[in-house]
Amino acid sequence: MSTEYVPGLEGVIAARTEISMVDGANGRLVYRGYVIADLAEDMSFEEVAHLLWQGRLPNRAELDALTLELAGWRALTPPAMSTLEALPSDTDPMDVLRSVVSVQGVEHKLEKPSIPLAIHATASLPTILAHFHRRRQGLERVKPNPSLGHAANYLYMLNGKESSPELVHALNTYLVLLADHGMNASTFTARVIASTESDLASCLVGAIGALKGPAHGGAPSAVMDQLEQIGTAENAEHWMREARKRKVRFMGFGHRIYRTYDPRAKILKAMCERLNPKFYELASKVEETALAILHEEHPERPQATNVEFYSAGVLQAIGLPTDMFPTTFAVSRAAGWTAHVLEQVAHNRLIRPQSEYIGPEPHKPVPLAQRS
Amino acid sequence: MSTEYVPGLEGVIAARTEISMVDGANGRLVYRGYVIADLAEDMSFEEVAHLLWQGRLPNRAELDALTLELAGWRALTPPAMSTLEALPSDTDPMDVLRSVVSVQGVEHKLEKPSIPLAIHATASLPTILAHFHRRRQGLERVKPNPSLGHAANYLYMLNGKESSPELVHALNTYLVLLADHGMNASTFTARVIASTESDLASCLVGAIGALKGPAHGGAPSAVMDQLEQIGTAENAEHWMREARKRKVRFMGFGHRIYRTYDPRAKILKAMCERLNPKFYELASKVEETALAILHEEHPERPQATNVEFYSAGVLQAIGLPTDMFPTTFAVSRAAGWTAHVLEQVAHNRLIRPQSEYIGPEPHKPVPLAQRS
Repeated sequence: MSTEYVPGLEGVIAARTEISMVDGANGRLVYRGYVIADLAEDMSFEEVAHLLWQGRLPNRAELDALTLELAGWRALTPPAMSTLEALPSDTDPMDVLRSVVSVQGVEHKLEKPSIPLAIHATASLPTILAHFHRRRQGLERVKPNPSLGHAANYLYMLNGKESSPELVHALNTYLVLLADHGMNASTFTARVIASTESDLASCLVGAIGALKGPAHGGAPSAVMDQLEQIGTAENAEHWMREARKRKVRFMGFGHRIYRTYDPRAKILKAMCERLNPKFYELASKVEETALAILHEEHPERPQATNVEFYSAGVLQAIGLPTDMFPTTFAVSRAAGWTAHVLEQVAHNRLIRPQSEYIGPEPHKPVPLAQRS
Repeated sequence: MSTEYVPGLEGVIAARTEISMVDGANGRLVYRGYVIADLAEDMSFEEVAHLLWQGRLPNRAELDALTLELAGWRALTPPAMSTLEALPSDTDPMDVLRSVVSVQGVEHKLEKPSIPLAIHATASLPTILAHFHRRRQGLERVKPNPSLGHAANYLYMLNGKESSPELVHALNTYLVLLADHGMNASTFTARVIASTESDLASCLVGAIGALKGPAHGGAPSAVMDQLEQIGTAENAEHWMREARKRKVRFMGFGHRIYRTYDPRAKILKAMCERLNPKFYELASKVEETALAILHEEHPERPQATNVEFYSAGVLQAIGLPTDMFPTTFAVSRAAGWTAHVLEQVAHNRLIRPQSEYIGPEPHKPVPLAQRS
């Protein structure tokens, strides 16, 4: 029992988990015994979701069953659809997701989180986003296509046509890479809410709220903004050195855990080079410059390019609008969030830390009439 | 830096706060230097909200300004109203609150939490609940009455007429008593979300989701259910001894922090005796019996009646339906949640604990075709 204040709970172990390991020292991310590099290229999001939820990779029959189940639960409930229609077109897609996931969940009241509920919630996220994105462009809604997998159907519903196998594969890889990551702030939020014996929608809504924060999932669009400002590879060094004089933070660098290169960033970087050469040319120069400047300033600090940096280029190549980068992160992370909720519920103990009071000592209040 | 797993983060200090102190050993609850007993009887919810948000009790001019501001922000936005209309009549009021607070917040996007935003959010909660409650009864909505305070207007909008000064005073006292309570699970959730630099609505929505859990705020209705099953004071001892043989948990007892009588329960008990004598007769007998049985079973454990036990009787006397006890808790706690979010934002550091991986050691995946 610690009795010392730990800012940000840094280093405090808040949960034991079988779901994933972020091995910062060795630059490894492991999902239930498999390193991410062994999953990212060849496995479907559905396979990895099975792994996260059930604890093992599916055989063919199990994978087919899960794929069918996910494809079968894409529709929104009528109240969720009405809420979606009521939201203004300029709503932040993260707020759309937070609100509609909440409404979609009301029919389950205080039902205990379960694998079927995890499947249903995960299945409906792309529908919410695609319907909203079509509407704000003044386009007709596109019904989900049950013959397409999770990644392919998301793009189909967004664009009204199927994307190339290459882009579907890229989105699938992105969804696999981001699906879980130890005890990040949104997953922790989901587990705290689950620990009160609340329902799955409450956990997801809290997690989406946490992911919305720029210090967590809200950064990929900031990466794009910064790259846009820099403009060209030739301009990078000059712009960045000037920016540092004004204490501007470089977006997409640094992570509390990794002490070496983020294994997801490595895979995304290679994808970027292939899919988005224009982005890659600028981004790789910016990365090189950022790491050099940051190293000059703090040679003692490990400087890692984080997952958001090359995510931005991959998601752009796939054709997603910048303001849907964080929500697409949520589409992926829904698998991890729900897996963590199920794990929390299976071995539950209310997560309720303490606070240290540093306010005034107790004293008598002055009556209202005498207060100045 | 702790490197040991602490289940439930019990005893871990996750924040320094000037807002409130739960002094479990002495049975004291302190809001910014004032013990709760000195605030509960004479102060309005508005006065206490000012204390929590601004750090000090208001003078007359400040109190008038805040009262006016709270009264002026009771209306719902059109999208929030549409969402409310879209929700089925049998929706759990906590889910109504979670969903409509989310929609009401979308117009603020990623705005930094501020006192005005805290006021606006707090002001609108009773409106959401009253509109929903009227609709599910097939009754017309009642517009907020700006000449009434927070407690009085809530009852006015629910019932379509003003309540007696005695009941308004009772609700006001309840709202003051429950407004903050150190680092409980919902407040902690709000602070974790705030720490990602997310917006106020995201923090509130997560907090509501956490409060919904029966291990946190979802218990007052369980107290009513149990009292109903017991039926009469004469039946209490027999029913309860039989129930314990079946491992039934007594609702409304025990708290992780208080080692003596919860100071809020003490005030609520006295209110119950005055306002709800029928409830009091049964409840006080049940309390006496529960404490005796629990003491027999675990003489070493301090057994405290928690705040939910007599809350139930007070809220019933005020005329609130049982399923709106947790949401009325939220109406009160909104002041504390928002105060904690403001404090977190003022001295922010991302709250991101670690997890300990206990899954399988990394190994190569078996290809799909070879899995059995």
